[in-house]
Amino acid sequence: MEKIKVAIVGYGNIGRYAIEAAQAAEDMEIVGIVRRKAEPVPFPYKVVTDIAELGKVDVAILCTPSRKVEETAVKYLAKGINTVDSFDIHSQICQLRANLGKVAKEGGAVSVISAGWDPGSDSIVRALMQGIAPKGVTYTNFGPGRSMGHSVAVRAIPGVVDALSMTIPVGTGIHRRMVYVQLEQGADFAAVEAAIKADPYFVNDETHVMQVPCVDDLNDVGHGVNLVRKGVSGQTHNQLFEFNMKINNPALTAQILVCSARAAMRQQPGCYTMIEIPVIDYLCGDRETLIHDLV
Amino acid sequence: MEKIKVAIVGYGNIGRYAIEAAQAAEDMEIVGIVRRKAEPVPFPYKVVTDIAELGKVDVAILCTPSRKVEETAVKYLAKGINTVDSFDIHSQICQLRANLGKVAKEGGAVSVISAGWDPGSDSIVRALMQGIAPKGVTYTNFGPGRSMGHSVAVRAIPGVVDALSMTIPVGTGIHRRMVYVQLEQGADFAAVEAAIKADPYFVNDETHVMQVPCVDDLNDVGHGVNLVRKGVSGQTHNQLFEFNMKINNPALTAQILVCSARAAMRQQPGCYTMIEIPVIDYLCGDRETLIHDLV
Repeated sequence: MEKIKVAIVGYGNIGRYAIEAAQAAEDMEIVGIVRRKAEPVPFPYKVVTDIAELGKVDVAILCTPSRKVEETAVKYLAKGINTVDSFDIHSQICQLRANLGKVAKEGGAVSVISAGWDPGSDSIVRALMQGIAPKGVTYTNFGPGRSMGHSVAVRAIPGVVDALSMTIPVGTGIHRRMVYVQLEQGADFAAVEAAIKADPYFVNDETHVMQVPCVDDLNDVGHGVNLVRKGVSGQTHNQLFEFNMKINNPALTAQILVCSARAAMRQQPGCYTMIEIPVIDYLCGDRETLIHDLV
Repeated sequence: MEKIKVAIVGYGNIGRYAIEAAQAAEDMEIVGIVRRKAEPVPFPYKVVTDIAELGKVDVAILCTPSRKVEETAVKYLAKGINTVDSFDIHSQICQLRANLGKVAKEGGAVSVISAGWDPGSDSIVRALMQGIAPKGVTYTNFGPGRSMGHSVAVRAIPGVVDALSMTIPVGTGIHRRMVYVQLEQGADFAAVEAAIKADPYFVNDETHVMQVPCVDDLNDVGHGVNLVRKGVSGQTHNQLFEFNMKINNPALTAQILVCSARAAMRQQPGCYTMIEIPVIDYLCGDRETLIHDLV
């Protein structure tokens, strides 16, 4: 059987883990890595600045920041190269889906968007829970784990050298923010603390700020989720559902990108979120065997 | 928008709950109930012995025992009526899928099989967990809850008037059986206990047998599952996943049958297990709105 030819686009944290995940996938072959500058990486793959230099590519795995996804995906889809990304700006997903869907259909290609763990695999669980208990409330509780967006917001505050914002779940979708800051010499901690608590990222949440000598010493990529629904199946109340995970965040994101790359090969041209794809399409292996083993 | 016309086939425990679930689904309309005898039911629907008497039926929701599923589904699919069932004999699912798939394609109809909670929604969770952590072990722990199969096996033992076998999870997919028996006057408890423990249903599990005056006093349709996977995403180990539920068993099964009936309307002719259908297809409502709210 011919292997799926994947290109890894971007070589940051997710890119490195995506290489590992594609290496571990027996139905895939990495044809190269696309970077802004063709600097070598500690993996035995060709590094290029233009995907055209890699020859035939079935799927481009976009390991770029969310705000770079659309321009990159549009370029590839127009050439007939399938794309997957982990675009995570929840409010803009429908618009991205519409935009990429148009280009994908014209290019005869498939785009799988927002394929991370949230949005992504959590979305599948949320949709399933709604299907099997249509009335009710779902709470998504994140963490404990780093929030990149919140950490970046803190780093932008004058006097901050480095920052880490931990998301701590306190239940019912409410989160506490534990913010660790490393300050410039002479910076005023009280002023930094006040600026953080007034920032739109933090103003609505219980936020605690602590000064530490070295933020990097606290660095851990572990994360988690606790997704709960209490709802009604038919006319029967008090149906209780819960999904928990404790995971290495970039490793899981990269694995989901890779299994979504496989799924992209099995869809009709267009743009899809993960809930629009049969779960079996994410899996490697013979279909009958998968059904026998998993159903 | 035209409503999906559903027929409820069978009026046992699941059938009653399926009526409630279809009533609660705003995109569905119950056109009638099919029974062996056209005895009235405490719901305002026509009861017939032949589905042809109901006029146009889009989907037949089969609420019959597993061993009756194939003969009923074959008959309906050949007429172009979609079917859903909660066939639960795990080892025979692939064969049923092949058999019904052939008839469904010839009839231009869709069959969704094994659409309960296990097999069914649990299968979706198991497949998702395997996709996002391809190497590792998944354990499905059932209960506490009644096992119908085990209870029926005990009732067949001489001297037993009624029996209830509770499945108790002890972890790693191992289960304890708590068996409550109501005996005929003069029956020998020790002999009944020995017969139960020697039965193929029980011989490999830790089994405790207790005599009670009235099994019906213990009757509770609550059930549950704890589905756990520890696995590897890419090349990163110790990724931990867990799905739990505590539910009214027939209500959940019926709800899943009903949302699978909806999904049946959205597939190409053929036979599908739940993992072969996009999760969004089980849901009622506008697709864009669902993606906005759930992804």
